[in-house]
Amino acid sequence: MTKLSNDYIQEIVKECRPFASSGSVIDHIPGKDQSHLTKLGITVISNDGEVYSAGDDDYVFSLQSISKVINLLIALEDFGEDTVFQKVDKEPTDDFFNSISNLEDYEHQKPYNPMLNSGAIAVASLIKGTTVDERFHRVLEFVRTITGNEKVDMDEGVYKAEVKNGARNRSLAYFMESLGILPHQELEAALDLYFRVNSIMVTSHELAEIGCFLARQGKKEGKQMIDPRHVGTTLAIMMTSGMYNESGSYAVDVGFPMKSGVSGGITGVVTGRMGIGLIGPAINKKGNSIAGGKALRKLSQDLNLTLFHT
Amino acid sequence: MTKLSNDYIQEIVKECRPFASSGSVIDHIPGKDQSHLTKLGITVISNDGEVYSAGDDDYVFSLQSISKVINLLIALEDFGEDTVFQKVDKEPTDDFFNSISNLEDYEHQKPYNPMLNSGAIAVASLIKGTTVDERFHRVLEFVRTITGNEKVDMDEGVYKAEVKNGARNRSLAYFMESLGILPHQELEAALDLYFRVNSIMVTSHELAEIGCFLARQGKKEGKQMIDPRHVGTTLAIMMTSGMYNESGSYAVDVGFPMKSGVSGGITGVVTGRMGIGLIGPAINKKGNSIAGGKALRKLSQDLNLTLFHT
Amino acid sequence: MTKLSNDYIQEIVKECRPFASSGSVIDHIPGKDQSHLTKLGITVISNDGEVYSAGDDDYVFSLQSISKVINLLIALEDFGEDTVFQKVDKEPTDDFFNSISNLEDYEHQKPYNPMLNSGAIAVASLIKGTTVDERFHRVLEFVRTITGNEKVDMDEGVYKAEVKNGARNRSLAYFMESLGILPHQELEAALDLYFRVNSIMVTSHELAEIGCFLARQGKKEGKQMIDPRHVGTTLAIMMTSGMYNESGSYAVDVGFPMKSGVSGGITGVVTGRMGIGLIGPAINKKGNSIAGGKALRKLSQDLNLTLFHT
Amino acid sequence: MTKLSNDYIQEIVKECRPFASSGSVIDHIPGKDQSHLTKLGITVISNDGEVYSAGDDDYVFSLQSISKVINLLIALEDFGEDTVFQKVDKEPTDDFFNSISNLEDYEHQKPYNPMLNSGAIAVASLIKGTTVDERFHRVLEFVRTITGNEKVDMDEGVYKAEVKNGARNRSLAYFMESLGILPHQELEAALDLYFRVNSIMVTSHELAEIGCFLARQGKKEGKQMIDPRHVGTTLAIMMTSGMYNESGSYAVDVGFPMKSGVSGGITGVVTGRMGIGLIGPAINKKGNSIAGGKALRKLSQDLNLTLFHT
Repeated sequence: MTKLSNDYIQEIVKECRPFASSGSVIDHIPGKDQSHLTKLGITVISNDGEVYSAGDDDYVFSLQSISKVINLLIALEDFGEDTVFQKVDKEPTDDFFNSISNLEDYEHQKPYNPMLNSGAIAVASLIKGTTVDERFHRVLEFVRTITGNEKVDMDEGVYKAEVKNGARNRSLAYFMESLGILPHQELEAALDLYFRVNSIMVTSHELAEIGCFLARQGKKEGKQMIDPRHVGTTLAIMMTSGMYNESGSYAVDVGFPMKSGVSGGITGVVTGRMGIGLIGPAINKKGNSIAGGKALRKLSQDLNLTLFHT
Repeated sequence: MTKLSNDYIQEIVKECRPFASSGSVIDHIPGKDQSHLTKLGITVISNDGEVYSAGDDDYVFSLQSISKVINLLIALEDFGEDTVFQKVDKEPTDDFFNSISNLEDYEHQKPYNPMLNSGAIAVASLIKGTTVDERFHRVLEFVRTITGNEKVDMDEGVYKAEVKNGARNRSLAYFMESLGILPHQELEAALDLYFRVNSIMVTSHELAEIGCFLARQGKKEGKQMIDPRHVGTTLAIMMTSGMYNESGSYAVDVGFPMKSGVSGGITGVVTGRMGIGLIGPAINKKGNSIAGGKALRKLSQDLNLTLFHT
Repeated sequence: MTKLSNDYIQEIVKECRPFASSGSVIDHIPGKDQSHLTKLGITVISNDGEVYSAGDDDYVFSLQSISKVINLLIALEDFGEDTVFQKVDKEPTDDFFNSISNLEDYEHQKPYNPMLNSGAIAVASLIKGTTVDERFHRVLEFVRTITGNEKVDMDEGVYKAEVKNGARNRSLAYFMESLGILPHQELEAALDLYFRVNSIMVTSHELAEIGCFLARQGKKEGKQMIDPRHVGTTLAIMMTSGMYNESGSYAVDVGFPMKSGVSGGITGVVTGRMGIGLIGPAINKKGNSIAGGKALRKLSQDLNLTLFHT
Repeated sequence: MTKLSNDYIQEIVKECRPFASSGSVIDHIPGKDQSHLTKLGITVISNDGEVYSAGDDDYVFSLQSISKVINLLIALEDFGEDTVFQKVDKEPTDDFFNSISNLEDYEHQKPYNPMLNSGAIAVASLIKGTTVDERFHRVLEFVRTITGNEKVDMDEGVYKAEVKNGARNRSLAYFMESLGILPHQELEAALDLYFRVNSIMVTSHELAEIGCFLARQGKKEGKQMIDPRHVGTTLAIMMTSGMYNESGSYAVDVGFPMKSGVSGGITGVVTGRMGIGLIGPAINKKGNSIAGGKALRKLSQDLNLTLFHT
């Protein structure tokens, strides 16, 4: 079997980079444009702390939807499963990540899962703190701790762009207010918090650290920061819904929990073995990094990472 | 940690049986009625061949949707992944198992996955053989071999009821003909084969054997009967879509691949460890066994079977 | 054939009132509650100015969705058909009046018609004026003129309740912003104007005057206030979409253009013959007055008012 | 105002023919291909029997969906409104004519209206007769009588093509069986009858005669063949749903009841004044004749035919 090494990761980068050109870079994020099409950075951190990294692993980008994992972990700690899953279900959906139609389903009346924008906004309303600022700093501090990088911070320009282009998310939030999921007084705070956490800047190193934190069942430097049960719940949801409406294909082809963001990042988690961070800003129509997806498939096959084989 | 034993399984049966009363038994299947509400049988077979069994484990019922797993394995062997996934996707959906609406989605135009009725009928058209009879006997022989029970057979009465109540499935099939997925000359054969395999009669023992066959990556008595890659593909699809539109909750609460049928059966697969067969004919609105679901949650927790914890 | 008279209208009121008890009164509107269940007021004004009226014709209620007709007439005058129908289509839909799903239809991307809440909010953005106040007063002045009642005014309490319960409409507005239909800077103004016009208070007399104004093709006291072509367009849309997703039944049973509101009002228009105003606050699930609907059916049959018979 | 004359109709043909080139001719109908793109025939028959005709008014084509009007009239006579509207609703929809999704709406559970394929198949099951042959000949005889043309007949080739391309309609029929709308024993007969009536061959003359028959409220040569109430019901449904999901635009632009078919025919009805028959085989994506639609708009404007103006 293939052995993990910097050379091996370098090889993957070289092999997968060409696939990016068929996608496109989200252009409402400041500082990102089509010139970044061919960037690809990969970092793998094994559970025993070895780091393997290559390519554009210093390329800085915003968390975007990977924030949904962070918020879910904290909300589960803050309020517990019962309260969280009263507001949002755990079921995968065939709808796009920013879909509103399923909220109108007259029987269901809540977001299908916390990996959809609607579900993530509902989850953001369940992070404790007296002000948005306080709540955001709790989240930011958590990200700094689990990534081991005290310099991680939000980008003001990205945040402003999030707010400016936030009409669709605002529509989702008001719809949830009308369903009784999101109290009126929580609406602006939940949206603001959601936009801010989306705007936290990272590289593939931080994504790998996040993945590794989950692969270690919520432990950082020996300290249990998140209840392993909540980590398990989050990983199961990432398994069925983490890659938007491509989650099923990724379950077959890659076979472990992952979460992607429209900035082109992906965090992968192989419980007990490793965390994987990828960045490839050229995404396909479903919102997933094209080169990143290729690289994950390759890594899973070469290193036999799928949960569905022995 | 809890240790597997007949007594332990007996305890689970006793604990979970009471939950069944809130469901109902599908009544279009001959010989099944509400008097079977409280039946519950559980069989676990470990990868090294130990059998633990209790409750109504001699209760005979039809495979129903668990047939979808069998057909998918054979179709993958017969035609390979490319051909199979040209006709049917691998994505989970929030729709009910017998839904037709998503076929009308003008971009998608194929069933979301092989665990839906539509997808399963498409898959049934990809089982080789010159006649339906020949094709069915290949499937039956396969089931007999992997369950190690030469007496497994189809029930004529159940089959006739399937045909008689087949309007919805026929509607799905004709819709797929109109989309070009199901050739006109294959339509009746695919439906007939689908109805017949649904009507194969088993107990929780056979379901556990099927689960164990998959947990051993497609090996029976040392012989590799199905390519491990096809087993992995099937397990990944069971993980995201095996429990209909409750698959997400089961991923969180149970955490390994399963497949249910409306007769109340469930097959569970813990790769490398065990296969689980359950029968509890009282099902909920989404088509899953209520007592069976309870028992699976308990087993997963007690024996730490989830893929998302260490 | 039956002849119009106060006695005849009185008879209709008596006959139709009992049907109301199966519905319910919208209770988010201040001053309205289930004690109003059995109210029914009917006023008919013939094109030559005769007034026939009976029952609770002095019962005061808010325009609610009947405002959609008023706003459409003014927007057509202010911007013309091309601009208006770039933002909103003219097609009937089977969806509920406050539906958002159809906005997500990836081909369509605009409200189906101006009688839906979404369409009406889009139309409200096309009423000229530098401030919401100025725009509202243009609309109010128009209503005062065509009803011949200078005392018609908005109710502050109803308006506040509209704003307070406005989450669903706000969700529709932001979704339309995300589609590019409603510019961000127009959004709050359009919503505010929409809520205000909904809160204009009337009786069955004013509704009959509005109907009569349209039956006279946009003339008031000899003065052509609205282009007859715009009146025709509005009437055609009322014909196919005026009674929400019961419009088809009303076309068959009543057979002329109508518009209803959730406060229980209906305006009917028999071009060249008469305007009809009804109020019956007990509405059914689709949002239409139950007793009002009965009365319209009776009037149409007795007086042979349908457009589809000679 | 413009006066009806052969010259005037000739002028309309000349003016509207060029618009056809943007559409396409349905090619599953034998004998029809893109070479017929520019054909346009128009016939108008006034209520007092004057005939005005021009263009390709001898071009022979199949009734296709215009058959839905014929079948509805006969079913209403055979079983009455209550029975017919238990099987099919009267509401317009935004869905395409061959849509199945709305049948899956768990509250509604029947076709929205008789102008959809689903609704028309349900209606075809309500035409009396002991055999399909007998039922078809009743319909054919009716068409011959109301068009005054004893030679009108079905085309065997078109019928065979209808059957061969019938998968979508068969899917609709089986779905309705599963809903309990279409009894199993009626299914094949209803489909067969539907296909046959679709295959009756006509020219614009026959379409104008059908329109005129309805404009005279169901009278032919002084004989009341259809209850005027059933004619009214049919016209109201044509008004809200006769032009598929363009019915709303046609209500605004043309303003009287019409019905189109995918072969490019349209029948228009101006109650008390005239029947209009058009054929222009180039249709748009929604299934309506492009040149025919242009011609109707022109006729309505020139002759002031809309019901929504005086």
